Amino acid sequence: MPQYADSLTDANRAFLTDLFPGDGCVFETEQLNAFSTDASRERSMPWAVVRPECREQVAELLQWADAERMPVYPRARATGQVGNTVPSLHGVTVSLLRMNRIIDIDGRDFAAEVEPGVITSDFQAACAEKGLFYPPDPASVKISTMGGNISTCAGGLRAVKYGVTRDWVLGIEAALPGGKVLTMGGRSQKDVVGLDLKRLFVGANGKLGLITRATVKLIPLPEASSSILVGFADLAASMDGVTAVFGAGLLPCACEFMDATTIKALRLLGDIPLAPEAQAALLFKFDGTAEGVAAEVRRLKEALVPLAVSMEAGEGEAEEAVWAARREISPGSYRLRPNKLSEDLAVPRGRVPEMVDIAHKAGADAGLPVLCYGHLGDGNIHANIMHDAQRPGELEAAHRVKEQLFRAAVKLGGTISGEHGTGLTKASFVPEQLGADQLHYMDAVRRIFDPNEIMNPGKGW
Amino acid sequence: MPQYADSLTDANRAFLTDLFPGDGCVFETEQLNAFSTDASRERSMPWAVVRPECREQVAELLQWADAERMPVYPRARATGQVGNTVPSLHGVTVSLLRMNRIIDIDGRDFAAEVEPGVITSDFQAACAEKGLFYPPDPASVKISTMGGNISTCAGGLRAVKYGVTRDWVLGIEAALPGGKVLTMGGRSQKDVVGLDLKRLFVGANGKLGLITRATVKLIPLPEASSSILVGFADLAASMDGVTAVFGAGLLPCACEFMDATTIKALRLLGDIPLAPEAQAALLFKFDGTAEGVAAEVRRLKEALVPLAVSMEAGEGEAEEAVWAARREISPGSYRLRPNKLSEDLAVPRGRVPEMVDIAHKAGADAGLPVLCYGHLGDGNIHANIMHDAQRPGELEAAHRVKEQLFRAAVKLGGTISGEHGTGLTKASFVPEQLGADQLHYMDAVRRIFDPNEIMNPGKGW
Repeated sequence: MPQYADSLTDANRAFLTDLFPGDGCVFETEQLNAFSTDASRERSMPWAVVRPECREQVAELLQWADAERMPVYPRARATGQVGNTVPSLHGVTVSLLRMNRIIDIDGRDFAAEVEPGVITSDFQAACAEKGLFYPPDPASVKISTMGGNISTCAGGLRAVKYGVTRDWVLGIEAALPGGKVLTMGGRSQKDVVGLDLKRLFVGANGKLGLITRATVKLIPLPEASSSILVGFADLAASMDGVTAVFGAGLLPCACEFMDATTIKALRLLGDIPLAPEAQAALLFKFDGTAEGVAAEVRRLKEALVPLAVSMEAGEGEAEEAVWAARREISPGSYRLRPNKLSEDLAVPRGRVPEMVDIAHKAGADAGLPVLCYGHLGDGNIHANIMHDAQRPGELEAAHRVKEQLFRAAVKLGGTISGEHGTGLTKASFVPEQLGADQLHYMDAVRRIFDPNEIMNPGKGW
Repeated sequence: MPQYADSLTDANRAFLTDLFPGDGCVFETEQLNAFSTDASRERSMPWAVVRPECREQVAELLQWADAERMPVYPRARATGQVGNTVPSLHGVTVSLLRMNRIIDIDGRDFAAEVEPGVITSDFQAACAEKGLFYPPDPASVKISTMGGNISTCAGGLRAVKYGVTRDWVLGIEAALPGGKVLTMGGRSQKDVVGLDLKRLFVGANGKLGLITRATVKLIPLPEASSSILVGFADLAASMDGVTAVFGAGLLPCACEFMDATTIKALRLLGDIPLAPEAQAALLFKFDGTAEGVAAEVRRLKEALVPLAVSMEAGEGEAEEAVWAARREISPGSYRLRPNKLSEDLAVPRGRVPEMVDIAHKAGADAGLPVLCYGHLGDGNIHANIMHDAQRPGELEAAHRVKEQLFRAAVKLGGTISGEHGTGLTKASFVPEQLGADQLHYMDAVRRIFDPNEIMNPGKGW
């Protein structure tokens, strides 16, 4: 590990106060406290928080930080679940929330330019007003930012049809350690000149530089959508259901899955639009022209009649009701146990049944309920390992289950994270997935942009 | 420029003969001749051609080549238009055509694994047999290979809806200079662990290593498609037409454009299904369910009625007829002049009218016909600068036009190549587009994988 600054000197404070006047700079413990953690609940105190309002401030900050060997932690709404914004080696946290302008949404270019602090759903709403669509929709979309989504390569429900954040980024402007501002890509939808550096920054978790602006691709806003919640007697039938739907030539924009434990948790909260005998469920969404969507729903029903025990479709305002159950999973899960480890394994799509079986078995062996649900359409399963941290041994048992699931996912040709990243909570498992060779080349690429490794240090990839 | 081997020694020949027995190795001038050029018609002789059949041979070759500082040129069907496979500094050409196995097409994983020498349309046909779809479709799809498509990040007609090759690559296995074989990514549709090295190899034009295997994403094969050729009185009306179609919320899988000069060239060949007064044309394709496609075509017609002078739709077998004109552009163009410079500029979609105007004006000033056509939907315009190389000054004039177009594309926020790459023919223009900073980082990343720069040297990015 490189040598880092071991404190914030008076000269450092003077520099920061000068560069970020007024409340642009925070040193008081009470205020810093709010920046010490994120949705992971991991915790470590920064020495200072700064709030840049323009790229020039970011560049000057990174010139200084590189010279001072000062760890720098990018942060926006801190919705990440793995501790990626936690200043684990202290240093300076950079809140990008004041760089929150939508520069431009262009219906001729089908492109938009944003600063990193723009809330993603605000941006989507602004696009929709112009009949345009930015598809990536992580669960946090109403509170997380474009910069955070890009830094983590956020996924979401619609990834089956539309891909993840990386697929929508056309250009990145980033400030690098040392103070250079690098502009990569632009508004052109196609470009094969040079290495695709911009997309290397997507999902780099702030380890290459600080994103100060991004250009994303848009498409026309689909005029209609429709969703359908389908109940199955058991897990196997639901997996056959997925095969039948894709086999009918249908490409839903979302294809979500819930296992028996998830359904049980939801039933503890109230009624759900599923047959009482349903022990597994699939939730599909289609979008496009009204006629196209109606046809897809009709085909889906035809394909699933022999397999399903219930089907509840909804469009327009009724569509939200179909999705209510999906949104209640998190609150519902806590009816089973007061604590959870929330993991997001991804495996090749055909290996999902095996992965879910392994998760159930590992939970049963440990005496812990494990909820499996999530983005079946792209093999990305959220496994919630429920436990009671107050009961002796349960937290440790939960961690052992998590470890088993990680090993199994990698063995099945998958990954320990389809969306959340690795940050602090999964850092120790990264080498098992990537192996020494990939890690060697990733670290070498990282050091080209950040030779002194000041950017978000102490985290997994 | 690094120091390279200045000839093939007897020891080198012995090594190659041993590693590639029988006709796996070629040294005779007459045979080498066929490997000295590609669709660019640039020409330079390799000292040897080798034909590996497995990754182990490729790895051993690159271990040797790195030690010997021997330039290595990957080559498949050599359909590239910019000279990327031409062994401009001599050295050894590696033909990947014997590594042509489709390892696996998996309808549960919605993924396939291929060796680099598989012909792309053969692969697509094998997918279609299983009801699966691999969308990227460069014009060369019937002769070019998956490895070549990946190395160049091939685009194609369907990029508007489905993106380019990069968007479909899940995993890459590549042999690196020095002999290491690096496996990046895999069959998981989502994965956020680590930097996205695999996609860095897509479009790297063989400058990072030799791709020995690739895993790509598939989707269900759409059951229906329909195309429609729309004539307009002038260029401005056709551009309004595009705006009307996208504004109606439609996302065609192809949206092609032809200008007046292109239409004139086509009419010299024979009848085309366009009104006689049409001076610009758009060609759309939609795919999906039969009902969805029918609805999209209906909406498109409604949107274009006020703007178009003719509309000719076709589905099923009649669809091919609609596309026949598009395919005749290249032969038709030679009716105007015997030679062409074929460039593929891309600009932000809204800047296409300006770019086309600039191209027409530059052509008129030089007294040369310039055909503009191509992938309007993603701002990627093929500009063919027609000339007669036998007439004094015409070739030089064509090159001056090309230079003007490159400068204009960059100035409009675009790129000198949306699909073809830069290779030999555009190498000198690359710095103007990328600038010193991006080039610095690209070269630094390249040297991590290829410190002695033996991979496809002497080319633009």
